[in-house]
Amino acid sequence: MTFRVHIHVVPRKGLLDPQGKAVADALHALGFAAVRDVRIGRHLVVETAADSASHAEEQTRAMCAKLLANPVTEDFVLEHVEAL
Amino acid sequence: MTFRVHIHVVPRKGLLDPQGKAVADALHALGFAAVRDVRIGRHLVVETAADSASHAEEQTRAMCAKLLANPVTEDFVLEHVEAL
Repeated sequence: MTFRVHIHVVPRKGLLDPQGKAVADALHALGFAAVRDVRIGRHLVVETAADSASHAEEQTRAMCAKLLANPVTEDFVLEHVEAL
Repeated sequence: MTFRVHIHVVPRKGLLDPQGKAVADALHALGFAAVRDVRIGRHLVVETAADSASHAEEQTRAMCAKLLANPVTEDFVLEHVEAL
């Protein structure tokens, strides 16, 4: 079976996010004065073959730990797993 | 009130995603042979002041249309809106 896993990788709370800061400033300049803060991370969609959803999830966590997220500066969340 | 809006911006289906392709190849090289496809977009978290959740959502859609997403190559989804 094939599963599609959606992952968020976001900069850790408390760490500087210069890209988010730049976008917040740009939104202010465009007239969106109500914006307080912007944080920018990555949204990954991984399609992988696996026996079960829990196996797909386990595999994807291993991928995040090895390659997809930087454990020092980023947190990752597996948002949801769907069967295709 | 302040609301936190989570947004995904992903490359349109059918468009080439070279970053995703590179990551899929790297995962194969690391031994994750079951990976079929990877697509990479941005995950944005915008904190904005608004009267209501629907107002915050409307504002955020305007931000996506003006700055946060490229309407030619990307799709955006407002994943959820939470009150802080």
